[in-house]
Amino acid sequence: MIVLKLGGSVITDKASPETVDETTLDRLARAVGDADEPLVVVHGGGSFGHHHADRHGVSSTDGTRSADAIREIHAAMGQLNDAVVGALARADVPSVPIRPLSAATRDEGLDLSVAPIRGLLDEGFVPVLHGDVVGHAGRGATIVSGDALVAALAPAVDADRVGLCTGVPGVYDTEDRVIETITDPDSVDSLGASDATDVTGGMAAKVETLAALDRPASIFGVDDLSAFLSGERPGTTVE
Amino acid sequence: MIVLKLGGSVITDKASPETVDETTLDRLARAVGDADEPLVVVHGGGSFGHHHADRHGVSSTDGTRSADAIREIHAAMGQLNDAVVGALARADVPSVPIRPLSAATRDEGLDLSVAPIRGLLDEGFVPVLHGDVVGHAGRGATIVSGDALVAALAPAVDADRVGLCTGVPGVYDTEDRVIETITDPDSVDSLGASDATDVTGGMAAKVETLAALDRPASIFGVDDLSAFLSGERPGTTVE
Repeated sequence: MIVLKLGGSVITDKASPETVDETTLDRLARAVGDADEPLVVVHGGGSFGHHHADRHGVSSTDGTRSADAIREIHAAMGQLNDAVVGALARADVPSVPIRPLSAATRDEGLDLSVAPIRGLLDEGFVPVLHGDVVGHAGRGATIVSGDALVAALAPAVDADRVGLCTGVPGVYDTEDRVIETITDPDSVDSLGASDATDVTGGMAAKVETLAALDRPASIFGVDDLSAFLSGERPGTTVE
Repeated sequence: MIVLKLGGSVITDKASPETVDETTLDRLARAVGDADEPLVVVHGGGSFGHHHADRHGVSSTDGTRSADAIREIHAAMGQLNDAVVGALARADVPSVPIRPLSAATRDEGLDLSVAPIRGLLDEGFVPVLHGDVVGHAGRGATIVSGDALVAALAPAVDADRVGLCTGVPGVYDTEDRVIETITDPDSVDSLGASDATDVTGGMAAKVETLAALDRPASIFGVDDLSAFLSGERPGTTVE
Protein backbone atom coordinates (compact mmCIF):
# COMPACT_ATOMS: atom_id res chain seq x y z
CA MET A 1 0.00 0.00 0.00
CA ILE A 2 1.33 3.39 -1.05
CA VAL A 3 0.19 6.89 -0.07
CA LEU A 4 1.22 9.22 -2.90
CA LYS A 5 1.08 13.00 -2.71
CA LEU A 6 1.17 15.03 -5.91
CA GLY A 7 2.34 18.52 -5.00
CA GLY A 8 0.04 21.38 -5.92
CA SER A 9 2.90 23.30 -7.50
CA VAL A 10 3.66 20.29 -9.72
CA ILE A 11 0.20 19.78 -11.21
CA THR A 12 -0.79 23.44 -11.56
CA ASP A 13 0.79 26.49 -13.15
CA LYS A 14 1.46 28.62 -10.07
CA ALA A 15 1.98 31.71 -12.24
CA SER A 16 -1.64 31.81 -13.42
CA PRO A 17 -4.62 31.31 -11.11
CA GLU A 18 -6.60 28.07 -11.45
CA THR A 19 -4.62 26.64 -14.33
CA VAL A 20 -3.85 22.92 -14.47
CA ASP A 21 -0.47 21.85 -15.86
CA GLU A 22 -2.13 19.25 -18.09
CA THR A 23 1.11 17.95 -19.61
CA THR A 24 2.72 17.18 -16.26
CA LEU A 25 -0.52 15.87 -14.77
CA ASP A 26 -1.06 13.46 -17.67
CA ARG A 27 2.52 12.26 -17.40
CA LEU A 28 2.17 11.62 -13.65
CA ALA A 29 -1.19 9.91 -14.21
CA ARG A 30 0.37 7.51 -16.73
CA ALA A 31 3.07 6.64 -14.17
CA VAL A 32 0.36 5.91 -11.59
CA GLY A 33 -1.48 3.83 -14.21
CA ASP A 34 1.58 1.58 -14.48
CA ALA A 35 1.81 0.97 -10.71
CA ASP A 36 1.05 -2.51 -9.38
CA GLU A 37 0.42 -1.72 -5.71
CA PRO A 38 -2.86 -0.38 -4.28
CA LEU A 39 -2.61 3.31 -3.52
CA VAL A 40 -4.28 6.41 -2.20
CA VAL A 41 -3.53 9.69 -3.98
CA VAL A 42 -3.52 13.09 -2.28
CA HIS A 43 -2.91 16.36 -4.08
CA GLY A 44 -2.24 19.89 -2.95
CA GLY A 45 -3.90 23.13 -3.95
CA GLY A 46 -1.33 24.90 -6.10
CA SER A 47 -2.80 27.84 -7.95
CA PHE A 48 -6.36 26.72 -7.08
CA GLY A 49 -6.57 26.60 -3.31
CA HIS A 50 -4.02 29.06 -1.95
CA HIS A 51 -5.39 32.03 -3.84
CA HIS A 52 -8.86 31.65 -2.32
CA ALA A 53 -7.56 30.73 1.12
CA ASP A 54 -5.37 33.85 1.18
CA ARG A 55 -8.17 36.09 0.00
CA HIS A 56 -10.41 34.90 2.85
CA GLY A 57 -7.59 34.97 5.41
CA VAL A 58 -7.97 31.25 6.15
CA SER A 59 -5.03 29.04 7.09
CA SER A 60 -4.57 25.81 9.03
CA THR A 61 -4.90 27.84 12.25
CA ASP A 62 -6.89 30.95 11.24
CA GLY A 63 -10.49 29.92 10.68
CA THR A 64 -13.43 31.38 8.82
CA ARG A 65 -17.05 31.55 9.93
CA SER A 66 -18.20 32.37 6.40
CA ALA A 67 -20.02 29.59 4.58
CA ASP A 68 -19.37 31.58 1.38
CA ALA A 69 -15.62 31.30 1.98
CA ILE A 70 -15.87 27.56 2.68
CA ARG A 71 -17.91 26.95 -0.47
CA GLU A 72 -15.56 29.03 -2.61
CA ILE A 73 -12.31 27.39 -1.42
CA HIS A 74 -13.91 23.94 -1.55
CA ALA A 75 -15.29 24.48 -5.07
CA ALA A 76 -11.91 25.67 -6.39
CA MET A 77 -10.23 22.61 -4.93
CA GLY A 78 -13.04 20.47 -6.35
CA GLN A 79 -12.22 21.74 -9.84
CA LEU A 80 -8.60 20.69 -9.44
CA ASN A 81 -9.68 17.35 -7.94
CA ASP A 82 -11.91 16.76 -10.99
CA ALA A 83 -8.87 17.36 -13.21
CA VAL A 84 -6.68 14.93 -11.23
CA VAL A 85 -9.36 12.24 -10.97
CA GLY A 86 -10.06 12.66 -14.70
CA ALA A 87 -6.40 12.43 -15.73
CA LEU A 88 -6.01 9.27 -13.62
CA ALA A 89 -9.18 7.81 -15.18
CA ARG A 90 -7.78 8.41 -18.69
CA ALA A 91 -4.70 6.45 -17.57
CA ASP A 92 -7.00 3.55 -16.58
CA VAL A 93 -6.67 4.18 -12.84
CA PRO A 94 -10.00 3.37 -11.08
CA SER A 95 -9.95 6.77 -9.41
CA VAL A 96 -12.75 8.12 -7.22
CA PRO A 97 -12.90 11.57 -5.58
CA ILE A 98 -12.78 11.92 -1.79
CA ARG A 99 -13.56 15.40 -0.43
CA PRO A 100 -11.99 16.15 2.97
CA LEU A 101 -14.71 18.67 3.89
CA SER A 102 -17.03 15.64 3.97
CA ALA A 103 -14.53 13.30 5.59
CA ALA A 104 -12.55 15.22 8.20
CA THR A 105 -12.89 17.63 11.09
CA ARG A 106 -10.48 19.29 13.50
CA ASP A 107 -10.57 19.62 17.24
CA GLU A 108 -7.25 19.12 19.02
CA GLY A 109 -5.92 17.37 15.93
CA LEU A 110 -7.19 16.27 12.54
CA ASP A 111 -9.88 13.58 12.69
CA LEU A 112 -10.06 11.90 9.27
CA SER A 113 -12.87 9.38 8.76
CA VAL A 114 -11.02 6.53 7.11
CA ALA A 115 -13.78 3.89 6.90
CA PRO A 116 -15.11 5.20 3.53
CA ILE A 117 -11.56 5.36 2.14
CA ARG A 118 -10.71 1.86 3.35
CA GLY A 119 -14.01 0.58 1.97
CA LEU A 120 -13.17 1.88 -1.51
CA LEU A 121 -9.57 0.61 -1.32
CA ASP A 122 -10.78 -2.85 -0.34
CA GLU A 123 -13.00 -2.88 -3.43
CA GLY A 124 -10.06 -2.04 -5.70
CA PHE A 125 -10.65 1.68 -6.24
CA VAL A 126 -8.07 4.48 -5.91
CA PRO A 127 -9.33 7.27 -3.62
CA VAL A 128 -8.07 10.74 -4.57
CA LEU A 129 -8.06 13.34 -1.75
CA HIS A 130 -7.02 16.99 -1.84
CA GLY A 131 -6.05 19.86 0.40
CA ASP A 132 -9.34 21.39 1.51
CA VAL A 133 -11.20 23.38 4.14
CA VAL A 134 -12.69 21.44 7.09
CA GLY A 135 -14.79 22.18 10.17
CA HIS A 136 -12.64 23.21 13.15
CA ALA A 137 -14.01 23.22 16.71
CA GLY A 138 -14.23 26.79 17.97
CA ARG A 139 -12.77 28.35 14.81
CA GLY A 140 -15.39 27.74 12.13
CA ALA A 141 -13.38 26.09 9.39
CA THR A 142 -9.65 25.94 8.62
CA ILE A 143 -7.39 24.66 5.84
CA VAL A 144 -6.18 21.08 5.86
CA SER A 145 -3.09 20.68 3.69
CA GLY A 146 -2.36 17.73 1.47
CA ASP A 147 0.64 17.01 3.73
CA ALA A 148 -1.58 16.85 6.82
CA LEU A 149 -3.85 14.40 5.00
CA VAL A 150 -0.84 12.26 4.07
CA ALA A 151 0.18 12.18 7.74
CA ALA A 152 -3.31 11.07 8.78
CA LEU A 153 -3.73 8.55 5.96
CA ALA A 154 -0.40 6.72 6.15
CA PRO A 155 -1.06 5.03 9.50
CA ALA A 156 -4.82 4.74 8.83
CA VAL A 157 -4.36 2.64 5.69
CA ASP A 158 -1.14 1.08 7.06
CA ALA A 159 0.93 2.34 4.13
CA ASP A 160 4.17 0.51 3.40
CA ARG A 161 5.63 3.59 1.76
CA VAL A 162 4.81 7.26 1.39
CA GLY A 163 5.84 9.38 -1.59
CA LEU A 164 5.80 13.14 -2.07
CA CYS A 165 6.18 14.17 -5.70
CA THR A 166 7.35 17.78 -5.54
CA GLY A 167 8.78 20.53 -7.72
CA VAL A 168 12.33 19.67 -6.64
CA PRO A 169 14.24 16.36 -6.95
CA GLY A 170 14.62 15.99 -3.17
CA VAL A 171 15.78 17.84 -0.06
CA TYR A 172 18.87 19.91 -0.81
CA ASP A 173 21.83 20.28 1.52
CA THR A 174 23.46 23.70 1.97
CA GLU A 175 25.41 23.11 -1.26
CA ASP A 176 22.30 22.27 -3.29
CA ARG A 177 23.00 18.56 -3.51
CA VAL A 178 20.08 16.17 -2.92
CA ILE A 179 20.38 14.46 0.48
CA GLU A 180 19.83 10.69 0.09
CA THR A 181 18.59 9.85 3.57
CA ILE A 182 17.37 11.89 6.52
CA THR A 183 16.91 10.18 9.86
CA ASP A 184 17.02 13.28 12.06
CA PRO A 185 15.51 16.44 10.53
CA ASP A 186 17.13 18.59 13.25
CA SER A 187 20.58 17.61 11.95
CA VAL A 188 19.87 18.95 8.46
CA ASP A 189 21.35 22.46 8.27
CA SER A 190 19.56 23.37 5.04
CA LEU A 191 16.18 22.95 6.77
CA GLY A 192 17.02 25.48 9.46
CA ALA A 193 15.18 28.27 7.70
CA SER A 194 11.82 27.04 6.42
CA ASP A 195 11.08 28.05 2.85
CA ALA A 196 7.38 28.10 3.70
CA THR A 197 5.70 30.64 1.48
CA ASP A 198 2.20 29.22 1.34
CA VAL A 199 -0.56 28.56 3.88
CA THR A 200 0.37 24.93 4.23
CA GLY A 201 4.10 24.81 4.96
CA GLY A 202 7.34 24.32 3.05
CA MET A 203 10.07 21.70 2.93
CA ALA A 204 11.08 21.81 6.60
CA ALA A 205 7.47 21.14 7.62
CA LYS A 206 7.21 18.31 5.09
CA VAL A 207 10.32 16.60 6.45
CA GLU A 208 9.13 16.99 10.06
CA THR A 209 5.78 15.45 9.11
CA LEU A 210 7.34 12.53 7.25
CA ALA A 211 9.89 11.84 10.01
CA ALA A 212 7.00 11.32 12.45
CA LEU A 213 5.32 8.69 10.26
CA ASP A 214 7.34 5.66 11.33
CA ARG A 215 7.50 4.29 7.76
CA PRO A 216 9.79 5.11 4.82
CA ALA A 217 8.86 8.27 2.97
CA SER A 218 10.44 9.69 -0.17
CA ILE A 219 10.57 13.23 -1.49
CA PHE A 220 11.32 13.31 -5.22
CA GLY A 221 10.68 15.19 -8.44
CA VAL A 222 8.37 14.54 -11.39
CA ASP A 223 10.99 12.55 -13.29
CA ASP A 224 11.23 10.02 -10.46
CA LEU A 225 7.59 9.04 -9.90
CA SER A 226 7.84 5.86 -11.97
CA ALA A 227 11.02 4.83 -10.14
CA PHE A 228 9.34 5.40 -6.77
CA LEU A 229 6.24 3.44 -7.76
CA SER A 230 8.33 0.52 -8.98
CA GLY A 231 9.97 0.21 -5.55
CA GLU A 232 13.08 2.37 -5.84
CA ARG A 233 14.04 5.16 -3.44
CA PRO A 234 14.67 8.20 -5.60
CA GLY A 235 15.29 11.68 -4.19
CA THR A 236 15.44 11.95 -0.42
CA THR A 237 14.19 9.18 1.87
CA VAL A 238 13.05 10.20 5.35
CA GLU A 239 12.94 7.36 7.82
CA MET B 1 -32.18 19.87 15.75
CA ILE B 2 -34.04 18.94 12.57
CA VAL B 3 -33.14 16.50 9.80
CA LEU B 4 -34.93 17.66 6.66
CA LYS B 5 -35.16 15.66 3.47
CA LEU B 6 -36.07 17.40 0.24
CA GLY B 7 -37.44 14.77 -2.14
CA GLY B 8 -35.65 14.39 -5.46
CA SER B 9 -38.96 14.51 -7.33
CA VAL B 10 -39.79 17.82 -5.63
CA ILE B 11 -36.63 19.73 -6.54
CA THR B 12 -36.15 18.33 -10.06
CA ASP B 13 -38.31 18.01 -13.13
CA LYS B 14 -38.65 14.23 -13.39
CA ALA B 15 -39.89 14.50 -16.97
CA SER B 16 -36.58 15.88 -18.30
CA PRO B 17 -33.17 14.45 -17.33
CA GLU B 18 -30.95 16.58 -15.08
CA THR B 19 -33.26 19.55 -14.81
CA VAL B 20 -33.63 21.43 -11.53
CA ASP B 21 -37.09 22.78 -10.65
CA GLU B 22 -35.61 26.18 -9.78
CA THR B 23 -38.90 27.77 -8.76
CA THR B 24 -39.76 25.09 -6.22
CA LEU B 25 -36.17 24.82 -5.00
CA ASP B 26 -35.92 28.57 -4.38
CA ARG B 27 -39.24 28.52 -2.55
CA LEU B 28 -38.12 25.66 -0.29
CA ALA B 29 -34.75 27.36 0.28
CA ARG B 30 -36.49 30.55 1.46
CA ALA B 31 -38.55 28.48 3.91
CA VAL B 32 -35.34 26.90 5.26
CA GLY B 33 -33.81 30.39 5.50
CA ASP B 34 -36.60 31.39 7.87
CA ALA B 35 -36.04 28.42 10.21
CA ASP B 36 -34.69 29.07 13.70
CA GLU B 37 -33.45 25.59 14.62
CA PRO B 38 -30.15 24.05 13.52
CA LEU B 39 -30.66 21.57 10.74
CA VAL B 40 -29.12 19.07 8.38
CA VAL B 41 -30.53 18.89 4.86
CA VAL B 42 -30.61 15.74 2.72
CA HIS B 43 -31.90 15.61 -0.82
CA GLY B 44 -32.75 12.80 -3.21
CA GLY B 45 -31.65 12.25 -6.78
CA GLY B 46 -34.77 12.95 -8.82
CA SER B 47 -33.98 13.26 -12.52
CA PHE B 48 -30.22 13.46 -11.81
CA GLY B 49 -29.29 10.28 -9.98
CA HIS B 50 -31.81 7.62 -10.98
CA HIS B 51 -31.17 7.92 -14.69
CA HIS B 52 -27.44 7.18 -14.30
CA ALA B 53 -27.96 4.52 -11.63
CA ASP B 54 -30.44 2.70 -13.89
CA ARG B 55 -28.17 2.89 -16.90
CA HIS B 56 -25.32 1.28 -14.95
CA GLY B 57 -27.60 -1.28 -13.29
CA VAL B 58 -26.69 -0.02 -9.80
CA SER B 59 -29.13 -0.06 -6.88
CA SER B 60 -28.86 -0.18 -3.10
CA THR B 61 -28.18 -3.92 -3.41
CA ASP B 62 -26.76 -4.39 -6.94
CA GLY B 63 -23.23 -3.00 -6.99
CA THR B 64 -20.87 -1.80 -9.67
CA ARG B 65 -17.14 -2.41 -9.97
CA SER B 66 -16.78 0.33 -12.55
CA ALA B 67 -15.03 3.47 -11.36
CA ASP B 68 -16.48 5.18 -14.46
CA ALA B 69 -20.00 4.39 -13.24
CA ILE B 70 -19.22 5.67 -9.73
CA ARG B 71 -17.75 8.91 -11.06
CA GLU B 72 -20.67 9.46 -13.42
CA ILE B 73 -23.43 8.88 -10.85
CA HIS B 74 -21.52 10.88 -8.23
CA ALA B 75 -20.89 13.80 -10.60
CA ALA B 76 -24.56 13.98 -11.62
CA MET B 77 -25.59 14.05 -7.97
CA GLY B 78 -22.90 16.65 -7.34
CA GLN B 79 -24.48 18.94 -9.92
CA LEU B 80 -27.83 18.71 -8.14
CA ASN B 81 -26.12 19.18 -4.77
CA ASP B 82 -24.45 22.36 -6.10
CA ALA B 83 -27.89 23.65 -7.10
CA VAL B 84 -29.40 22.90 -3.68
CA VAL B 85 -26.44 24.30 -1.73
CA GLY B 86 -26.49 27.38 -3.97
CA ALA B 87 -30.24 28.00 -3.57
CA LEU B 88 -29.87 27.68 0.21
CA ALA B 89 -26.91 30.10 0.15
CA ARG B 90 -29.00 32.67 -1.77
CA ALA B 91 -31.59 32.34 1.02
CA ASP B 92 -28.84 33.17 3.58
CA VAL B 93 -28.52 29.61 4.85
CA PRO B 94 -24.85 28.85 5.75
CA SER B 95 -24.97 25.72 3.61
CA VAL B 96 -21.98 23.46 2.95
CA PRO B 97 -21.90 20.38 0.73
CA ILE B 98 -21.35 16.91 2.22
CA ARG B 99 -20.72 14.11 -0.27
CA PRO B 100 -21.70 10.64 0.98
CA LEU B 101 -19.14 8.88 -1.27
CA SER B 102 -16.51 10.57 0.94
CA ALA B 103 -18.41 10.06 4.18
CA ALA B 104 -20.06 6.65 4.14
CA THR B 105 -19.46 2.99 3.35
CA ARG B 106 -21.55 -0.17 3.49
CA ASP B 107 -20.80 -3.54 4.96
CA GLU B 108 -23.62 -5.20 6.87
CA GLY B 109 -25.33 -1.82 7.18
CA LEU B 110 -24.61 1.78 6.27
CA ASP B 111 -21.65 3.29 8.16
CA LEU B 112 -21.95 7.08 7.96
CA SER B 113 -19.01 9.08 9.36
CA VAL B 114 -20.81 11.71 11.40
CA ALA B 115 -17.87 13.51 13.04
CA PRO B 116 -17.34 15.90 10.09
CA ILE B 117 -21.08 16.64 9.95
CA ARG B 118 -21.30 17.24 13.70
CA GLY B 119 -18.21 19.42 13.54
CA LEU B 120 -19.81 21.68 10.93
CA LEU B 121 -23.15 21.75 12.79
CA ASP B 122 -21.41 22.75 16.01
CA GLU B 123 -19.81 25.69 14.17
CA GLY B 124 -23.21 26.90 12.93
CA PHE B 125 -23.14 25.58 9.37
CA VAL B 126 -25.89 23.63 7.60
CA PRO B 127 -24.54 20.42 6.02
CA VAL B 128 -26.32 19.38 2.82
CA LEU B 129 -26.11 15.67 1.91
CA HIS B 130 -27.53 13.83 -1.07
CA GLY B 131 -28.39 10.36 -2.30
CA ASP B 132 -25.14 8.99 -3.74
CA VAL B 133 -23.04 5.96 -4.56
CA VAL B 134 -20.83 4.53 -1.78
CA GLY B 135 -18.28 1.74 -1.37
CA HIS B 136 -19.93 -1.58 -0.44
CA ALA B 137 -17.92 -4.49 0.96
CA GLY B 138 -17.87 -7.33 -1.56
CA ARG B 139 -20.05 -5.52 -4.11
CA GLY B 140 -17.94 -2.61 -5.35
CA ALA B 141 -20.24 0.33 -4.83
CA THR B 142 -23.99 0.67 -4.36
CA ILE B 143 -26.58 3.43 -4.15
CA VAL B 144 -27.37 5.06 -0.82
CA SER B 145 -30.74 6.79 -0.92
CA GLY B 146 -31.55 10.09 0.71
CA ASP B 147 -33.98 8.17 2.94
CA ALA B 148 -31.22 5.81 4.13
CA LEU B 149 -29.06 8.84 4.96
CA VAL B 150 -31.94 10.38 6.94
CA ALA B 151 -32.27 7.14 8.91
CA ALA B 152 -28.53 7.18 9.71
CA LEU B 153 -28.37 10.89 10.48
CA ALA B 154 -31.38 11.28 12.77
CA PRO B 155 -29.91 9.30 15.68
CA ALA B 156 -26.34 10.42 14.92
CA VAL B 157 -27.15 14.13 15.33
CA ASP B 158 -29.85 13.36 17.93
CA ALA B 159 -32.56 15.04 15.84
CA ASP B 160 -35.67 16.21 17.68
CA ARG B 161 -37.73 15.96 14.54
CA VAL B 162 -37.41 14.55 11.04
CA GLY B 163 -39.22 15.97 8.01
CA LEU B 164 -39.67 14.52 4.54
CA CYS B 165 -40.82 17.09 2.02
CA THR B 166 -42.35 15.04 -0.81
CA GLY B 167 -44.44 15.40 -3.93
CA VAL B 168 -47.61 14.52 -2.01
CA PRO B 169 -49.18 16.20 1.04
CA GLY B 170 -48.78 13.08 3.21
CA VAL B 171 -49.55 9.36 3.30
CA TYR B 172 -52.93 8.65 1.73
CA ASP B 173 -55.43 6.14 3.05
CA THR B 174 -57.31 3.88 0.63
CA GLU B 175 -59.78 6.72 -0.02
CA ASP B 176 -57.01 9.25 -0.84
CA ARG B 177 -57.33 11.22 2.40
CA VAL B 178 -54.10 12.17 4.19
CA ILE B 179 -53.57 10.06 7.33
CA GLU B 180 -52.69 12.31 10.29
CA THR B 181 -50.73 9.87 12.41
CA ILE B 182 -49.20 6.46 11.82
CA THR B 183 -47.94 4.47 14.76
CA ASP B 184 -47.98 1.02 13.16
CA PRO B 185 -47.16 0.94 9.44
CA ASP B 186 -48.48 -2.63 9.15
CA SER B 187 -51.96 -1.41 10.04
CA VAL B 188 -52.09 1.01 7.10
CA ASP B 189 -53.96 -0.72 4.26
CA SER B 190 -52.89 1.82 1.63
CA LEU B 191 -49.23 0.91 2.17
CA GLY B 192 -49.82 -2.77 1.41
CA ALA B 193 -48.67 -2.42 -2.17
CA SER B 194 -45.51 -0.32 -2.37
CA ASP B 195 -45.57 2.34 -5.07
CA ALA B 196 -41.80 2.00 -5.39
CA THR B 197 -40.84 2.79 -8.94
CA ASP B 198 -37.30 4.06 -8.42
CA VAL B 199 -34.06 2.48 -7.18
CA THR B 200 -34.48 3.85 -3.70
CA GLY B 201 -37.99 2.85 -2.57
CA GLY B 202 -41.44 4.37 -2.42
CA MET B 203 -43.84 5.51 0.29
CA ALA B 204 -44.16 2.16 2.12
CA ALA B 205 -40.38 2.00 2.50
CA LYS B 206 -40.28 5.63 3.70
CA VAL B 207 -42.86 4.97 6.41
CA GLU B 208 -41.07 1.80 7.54
CA THR B 209 -37.81 3.74 7.79
CA LEU B 210 -39.36 6.61 9.73
CA ALA B 211 -41.26 4.30 12.09
CA ALA B 212 -37.93 2.77 13.16
CA LEU B 213 -36.39 6.14 14.08
CA ASP B 214 -37.83 6.50 17.56
CA ARG B 215 -38.50 10.24 17.09
CA PRO B 216 -41.40 12.10 15.45
CA ALA B 217 -41.17 12.24 11.66
CA SER B 218 -43.46 14.07 9.27
CA ILE B 219 -44.22 13.45 5.61
CA PHE B 220 -45.66 16.54 3.94
CA GLY B 221 -45.86 18.46 0.67
CA VAL B 222 -44.07 21.57 -0.60
CA ASP B 223 -46.78 23.90 0.73
CA ASP B 224 -46.21 22.69 4.28
CA LEU B 225 -42.43 23.09 4.70
CA SER B 226 -42.71 26.42 6.53
CA ALA B 227 -45.36 25.01 8.87
CA PHE B 228 -43.16 22.01 9.65
CA LEU B 229 -40.10 24.16 10.29
CA SER B 230 -42.06 26.43 12.64
CA GLY B 231 -42.98 23.45 14.83
CA GLU B 232 -46.31 22.30 13.42
CA ARG B 233 -47.09 18.76 12.31
CA PRO B 234 -48.46 19.04 8.80
CA GLY B 235 -49.16 16.02 6.57
CA THR B 236 -48.64 12.62 8.15
CA THR B 237 -46.68 12.16 11.37
CA VAL B 238 -45.03 8.77 11.90
CA GLU B 239 -44.13 8.05 15.49
